[in-house]
Amino acid sequence: MKIEIWSDVKCPWCFVGKRRFEKALADFPHRDGVEVTWKSYQLDPDLPDHYEGTEQQYLAERKGIAPDQVRQMWQHLAQQAEGEGLAFDVDRIVVGNSFTAHRFLHLAKAHGRGDAAKEAVMSAHFEQGLDTSDVDVLVRLGVGIGLAEDEVRSTVAGDRFADDVRRDIEEARTIGVQGVPFFVIDRKYGISGAQPTGLFRQALDQAWQEAHPLVSLTPSGDGPACGPDGC
Amino acid sequence: MKIEIWSDVKCPWCFVGKRRFEKALADFPHRDGVEVTWKSYQLDPDLPDHYEGTEQQYLAERKGIAPDQVRQMWQHLAQQAEGEGLAFDVDRIVVGNSFTAHRFLHLAKAHGRGDAAKEAVMSAHFEQGLDTSDVDVLVRLGVGIGLAEDEVRSTVAGDRFADDVRRDIEEARTIGVQGVPFFVIDRKYGISGAQPTGLFRQALDQAWQEAHPLVSLTPSGDGPACGPDGC
Repeated sequence: MKIEIWSDVKCPWCFVGKRRFEKALADFPHRDGVEVTWKSYQLDPDLPDHYEGTEQQYLAERKGIAPDQVRQMWQHLAQQAEGEGLAFDVDRIVVGNSFTAHRFLHLAKAHGRGDAAKEAVMSAHFEQGLDTSDVDVLVRLGVGIGLAEDEVRSTVAGDRFADDVRRDIEEARTIGVQGVPFFVIDRKYGISGAQPTGLFRQALDQAWQEAHPLVSLTPSGDGPACGPDGC
Repeated sequence: MKIEIWSDVKCPWCFVGKRRFEKALADFPHRDGVEVTWKSYQLDPDLPDHYEGTEQQYLAERKGIAPDQVRQMWQHLAQQAEGEGLAFDVDRIVVGNSFTAHRFLHLAKAHGRGDAAKEAVMSAHFEQGLDTSDVDVLVRLGVGIGLAEDEVRSTVAGDRFADDVRRDIEEARTIGVQGVPFFVIDRKYGISGAQPTGLFRQALDQAWQEAHPLVSLTPSGDGPACGPDGC
């Protein structure tokens, strides 16, 4: 079973949703038969690499959300994140364009470290107040998950994997993704948003069951049974 | 090997099927490696807790089955049940919603007494003319299988395990169960209805064999042998 997850590294619900999904997957009996792929998405492709101001200022100024509402939103978010074991450090979040971080994720994916990279970048951004648009920060994160320093530096400083990022975003548009996180199972089922763990589990069960229908062991037909219309 | 059995406590073929399956399992050489789980199913979720009338009236009035046909059906059923050592007391069956009994079964399951509870409730319903929607009856049955009286009473009188019952029923829908009993082996094989014991045994053998293929002890390949096409 193939699960693709469109997500922006700077999207807080994507981090919360990652945890909820992971918990469902950890309990899923067929987890060894599940392949998870992270796909790039950008909530704000027009952001400069480094935005001068806090996340709260950014949302108020660029998105026109009232400061009070922004505060409330982040309080709620931080609480939900805490419930999933995440320690958001809201005031230290560094705002900036996520394109470079997405190219870094594609490099990691090419080395089979996509999930580790996603985790490292999101934690750096939301929990550690690190600037994940910065080349040195990404190099450090890359080395931390076992990538070669030189390759990370040249990739991040250059333009490599830019087409892969754009292709993911284009695919999201094709599929009809309007917000992230967005989970797609076998290109057949879509799950939008950071749903509760129980719902992810139900979706995994249902998708698996439909992809692996029960094999009848009674070729001669059903035995006597009771149904809605009688026995 | 994990076997899940969807069944309603007030479904006569489920009781007959339970016996036939148990006989097959008792003879199965790998029975110690088999885990059986009873799952809830409701044939008629809209029934009131206590239906005023006999089982035969219920089937005739609510399901629109002709009284003659109902009589014949129960004659056949009682005969089949007798063949499995069950003494159905058809005229004394108390008709009612099975939801509370299913919550009771989940409590027993949580204490490792799921099978004993299923047996007790079905026997009470089909053989002893007891009202298994009644709190006192379920308390008596629970104490009889070693559960704590207080916990059974508070559970049965309250709402505990309601979600578990609903989840089982929802799972049945996902899997495509249209009638009960329905047996599922390793979420891979399905057996519908109260099949003959021999067929259950065959299914157990086949599922076990497929889950435990022979390990070749000749890594260097097959030795010389004879087949249908020669030697």
